[in-house]
Amino acid sequence: MIAITDPRIEEYLMRLAPEEDPYVQEMEQLARERRFPIVDRLVGRLLYLLTRLRQPQLVVELGSGFGYSTWWFARAISITGKVVMTDHDQENIDYARRIFQETGLADRIEFRVGNALTIGRDYDNIDLLFIDVDKQDYRQAAEIMLPRLAKNALIIADNALWYGRVAEGNDDPETRGIAEFNRFMFARRDFFTTILPLRDGVLLSYKYG
Amino acid sequence: MIAITDPRIEEYLMRLAPEEDPYVQEMEQLARERRFPIVDRLVGRLLYLLTRLRQPQLVVELGSGFGYSTWWFARAISITGKVVMTDHDQENIDYARRIFQETGLADRIEFRVGNALTIGRDYDNIDLLFIDVDKQDYRQAAEIMLPRLAKNALIIADNALWYGRVAEGNDDPETRGIAEFNRFMFARRDFFTTILPLRDGVLLSYKYG
Ligand SMILES: C[S@@+](CC[C@H](N)C(=O)[O-])C[C@H]1O[C@@H](n2cnc3c(N)ncnc32)[C@H](O)[C@@H]1O
Ligand SMILES: C[S@@+](CC[C@H](N)C(=O)[O-])C[C@H]1O[C@@H](n2cnc3c(N)ncnc32)[C@H](O)[C@@H]1O
Repeated sequence: MIAITDPRIEEYLMRLAPEEDPYVQEMEQLARERRFPIVDRLVGRLLYLLTRLRQPQLVVELGSGFGYSTWWFARAISITGKVVMTDHDQENIDYARRIFQETGLADRIEFRVGNALTIGRDYDNIDLLFIDVDKQDYRQAAEIMLPRLAKNALIIADNALWYGRVAEGNDDPETRGIAEFNRFMFARRDFFTTILPLRDGVLLSYKYG
Repeated sequence: MIAITDPRIEEYLMRLAPEEDPYVQEMEQLARERRFPIVDRLVGRLLYLLTRLRQPQLVVELGSGFGYSTWWFARAISITGKVVMTDHDQENIDYARRIFQETGLADRIEFRVGNALTIGRDYDNIDLLFIDVDKQDYRQAAEIMLPRLAKNALIIADNALWYGRVAEGNDDPETRGIAEFNRFMFARRDFFTTILPLRDGVLLSYKYG
């Protein structure tokens, strides 16, 4: 495995932007306790900034877990916007519902339990699509969702470097899934795609027109 | 010095997005020959994507060198937009003028020779500000330019980790300059600021309202 960011740099960055929101802290704590793979704080902050820049009316998240990434989107959209969160684990969605009710953000969110690749088909004109499902399914998720995007949509996909394994050329199904997804997105001439080597790799893809 | 991104990952990312534009290749070659510090390809691609997302009418670049970063902005803005490039080295600006005339992008660009901190005062309503001058001057550049930003402006500053030295707490003037700039930007409550540990660190700051 390739270490992507030096821990001293992560620490410096955490010190610069201490997080005061108790719900963010609670969710980060929960992730540590359960060893649940959330995007980390830095990626969360990037999601927030990109969302502000794009000003989406509709965000669809495939694979929301218990809502950590959702929180960053929900904070960043305007009050007329909506975030669809999806997870096949009922408990995750219940937890998220409680958190978002307490923070007053619940009316910006649709809580959907089930297979994200099925639920995704219920939406059109998606301004911002976030992909964080099982890694074998990234390519299929892209194929299903691309026709459902709005003009100038932004796609964000987490784990685009998969602990660096895509660069090492590993051949397990998850690494292959990510590698195929990356090739697929970079081959589309109607999107501008790049990967930020941030944490586990964040793929960004902007739809021309 | 702390290595920020593993070379195998950089290589994988380069292979995914081969660059076919001969001017980009020429400028990257020139940078290697002269050991001239341009933002690299990955940061260039990020500049492009952020510019597309923000859709600025006016981009002001403080410290453009011979125009590599300028090229990414100029490609990303609409035909009604403008990029102001600044450098105190006449030769750099002359080179850029030739390149941009050949590529047909010259009419989107203002070529300005002189001190970027002075030239910057000629502009208002800046949608996107890029800072890449001498590192001691970042804080002063921010103080001069913040009042000149448009609504929802985006600031991008290169070298926000300064080879990791800000995290190591070095005390030379350049590291101090960057560290003070970072603290200054993160303390502003009217901006949302984050640093991507991409190459040498890219600070992004979004102006609320
Ligand atoms: C990496 S975690 C999500 C973390 C979340 N995005 C965050 O950053 O806070 C992936 C989640 O997606 C769920 N998941 C994976 N594949 C799914 C699918 N096809 N449909 C619905 N949920 C899925 C898993 O149960 C897990 O909770
Ligand atoms: C790091 S290089 C710029 C590279 C360029 N942004 C790119 O990525 O292709 C910094 C450039 O800024 C110029 N420079 C530094 N401080 C300046 C200032 N105060 N006014 C004008 N130019 C400056 C230097 O001459 C040098 O060409």
